[in-house]
Amino acid sequence: MNNPVVVATYEVPWAENLAERAHSIAIGMTIGSWNDINPARQKSLLEFRGEVGDISCERQDVGRFSIKYPVRNLKPSMASLLTVVFGKLSLDGQIRLVNLELPDEYARQFPGPSHGVPGLRAKFGVHHRPFVMSIFKRENGATLEEFQEAFQQQIDGGVDWVKDDEIYFNDEQAPLLERIRLTRQILAERAQRTGQLGLYAPNLTGTPAQMRDNAKRALEAGADSFLIAPFVTGLDILVELRREKIDVPFIAHPAFSGGIIGPHAWGVSPDILLGLLPRLAGADIVLFPSPYGSVAIARPDALAIHRRLQEPGRFPEVISGPSAGIHAGLVSQLIEDFGYDIVINAGSAVHSHPNGTTAGARVLMDAVLEVCHGNA
Amino acid sequence: MNNPVVVATYEVPWAENLAERAHSIAIGMTIGSWNDINPARQKSLLEFRGEVGDISCERQDVGRFSIKYPVRNLKPSMASLLTVVFGKLSLDGQIRLVNLELPDEYARQFPGPSHGVPGLRAKFGVHHRPFVMSIFKRENGATLEEFQEAFQQQIDGGVDWVKDDEIYFNDEQAPLLERIRLTRQILAERAQRTGQLGLYAPNLTGTPAQMRDNAKRALEAGADSFLIAPFVTGLDILVELRREKIDVPFIAHPAFSGGIIGPHAWGVSPDILLGLLPRLAGADIVLFPSPYGSVAIARPDALAIHRRLQEPGRFPEVISGPSAGIHAGLVSQLIEDFGYDIVINAGSAVHSHPNGTTAGARVLMDAVLEVCHGNA
Repeated sequence: MNNPVVVATYEVPWAENLAERAHSIAIGMTIGSWNDINPARQKSLLEFRGEVGDISCERQDVGRFSIKYPVRNLKPSMASLLTVVFGKLSLDGQIRLVNLELPDEYARQFPGPSHGVPGLRAKFGVHHRPFVMSIFKRENGATLEEFQEAFQQQIDGGVDWVKDDEIYFNDEQAPLLERIRLTRQILAERAQRTGQLGLYAPNLTGTPAQMRDNAKRALEAGADSFLIAPFVTGLDILVELRREKIDVPFIAHPAFSGGIIGPHAWGVSPDILLGLLPRLAGADIVLFPSPYGSVAIARPDALAIHRRLQEPGRFPEVISGPSAGIHAGLVSQLIEDFGYDIVINAGSAVHSHPNGTTAGARVLMDAVLEVCHGNA
Repeated sequence: MNNPVVVATYEVPWAENLAERAHSIAIGMTIGSWNDINPARQKSLLEFRGEVGDISCERQDVGRFSIKYPVRNLKPSMASLLTVVFGKLSLDGQIRLVNLELPDEYARQFPGPSHGVPGLRAKFGVHHRPFVMSIFKRENGATLEEFQEAFQQQIDGGVDWVKDDEIYFNDEQAPLLERIRLTRQILAERAQRTGQLGLYAPNLTGTPAQMRDNAKRALEAGADSFLIAPFVTGLDILVELRREKIDVPFIAHPAFSGGIIGPHAWGVSPDILLGLLPRLAGADIVLFPSPYGSVAIARPDALAIHRRLQEPGRFPEVISGPSAGIHAGLVSQLIEDFGYDIVINAGSAVHSHPNGTTAGARVLMDAVLEVCHGNA
């Protein structure tokens, strides 16, 4: 019987009775009960029944076990996947989801990124260096003129990409469509002058229907990428927009994910939540805290996210964006740790340069070019 | 100047430099920087600037501080609210969101529950006891006939409400609209025979557009309530459906919330995540782990969720559902701890009764009637 399964691995802070516990979850999270039902029905339910996979204990106080959930119990939505593998279970004391293996029969029902590393390199014609992105600061309260000036300064500094600050919602003074129109002009002018392509990623947010509506209007106005914070909007709106063939690059922001991935015995491993899931949902770039900056996570966690974004698989590799407190002085370290298929993403460092934003952006791009000189 | 603010309170495991840290967040999470901008612009940005509120330290290793975020920086979506108060900040080391005060200018832009306690009591004509709900078990793999039989048995046992299991997605054998049609017949028949009203809550899930579409089709078929798991679907789809005047009761399931609320120094307090937010979004019932059952949280946490659901405020009180491993023997304890405005919600205990599901449901309802006898 071909019965593909999603394999979820959990870590718990004990090592006793792991098999019994795993069995109880395998039954409870699929068909509810087993021994009390008659053989005929047991037979018909076998293909829906979860099974226990590997069980191991590294130490007296760390146990691991895997559960195999039949794909036939699932639908291709993040809501379904997360509810089955870590819904009620997330509340069951100290238990952490540490691995998730999706069979191709299931994974292929998700969209994945439209571009990924190869697509973005081809689009930009940038092949031998990381991408460089800067972030608006002081966007709240900015007039359209102030927005325009700040964008022009960043683009004049030579960055590839400029993204909205993720906390920017109050855009009455500088409405979305106006921002797109302005940035298109400035980017077209630079492309004509220098040949360098650039993108602007506005914050795509709100309730799902608002996001859908804004995406549609923004695309009609020429939008060429979007920032999205899937852990506050829900991952499935990204799945949905990608399924509807919206094929501009999405940049996923990790807002609100900290409580789930925090270095504790609950929640979900960073590489699953910020690596595997957004890649499956359709992000082309995923931002996450670097090991060095102002908001930092442990180096092994950052590297594990990076590997998930770029491990071989059904979907294109995703650009990883180790972020927060990034400045020119960190560029060589970032490239050493994460390679070239990343985005160097900086905000404060760009804008706080003593000679202004353009100089700050230039310093960042120069640092990248210097490190990559041999290959550029 | 009338400048309403959302006040968020954070707890951190240290007590030094709290004022400095709070100031940095207040500026960083609103306008980015302050001292480096000229007085004219400072003046225009003042109404967008965050302010530090109360600061306290209970012990050497526990600090608390509040930040006031101007409502004008926000939009009335959970995506906006959560990104501003706990987006990037959620990733900033050990920090926990422990309180959230929303001014009426902001809260009133959310829908809140359509019924709440008074609405549901009026609808059911049930005034002096908790509601009683049972949950399908072994729904995966069930044929329509098996579903019908299980529903009939639960209803014959006298429960008010029957809900889908939250892990039920594979409904090819018992399609949503067929289930609604069947349950309507069974409920109408009981109402005619006994006068007791009943509701069936199918699992409303999928991507946002699928949920919207399913809600629409289900309502046309006569659906009278929905189960929703807002921490996997995103809270904003609930906000959106409620804004569109879908006014059947929503039951919010806590799936996936465990990692965020877990008793650790990250994430969000249970009463905010499972109390304040779903009430704001529009849930009429919120399920959460009771302090007694199979999947348990600490008693003070469960009581704090309950208080949030029922504290006086703009929106109707929400029925709280301390759940998981609930059985007849816990009913008097549940009522003692949480009062009458709750739902007694049981699954396994109902179905595992030696005399069958109907007997199990009857035992549960009888336990409720017995405890409430004096007032029934």
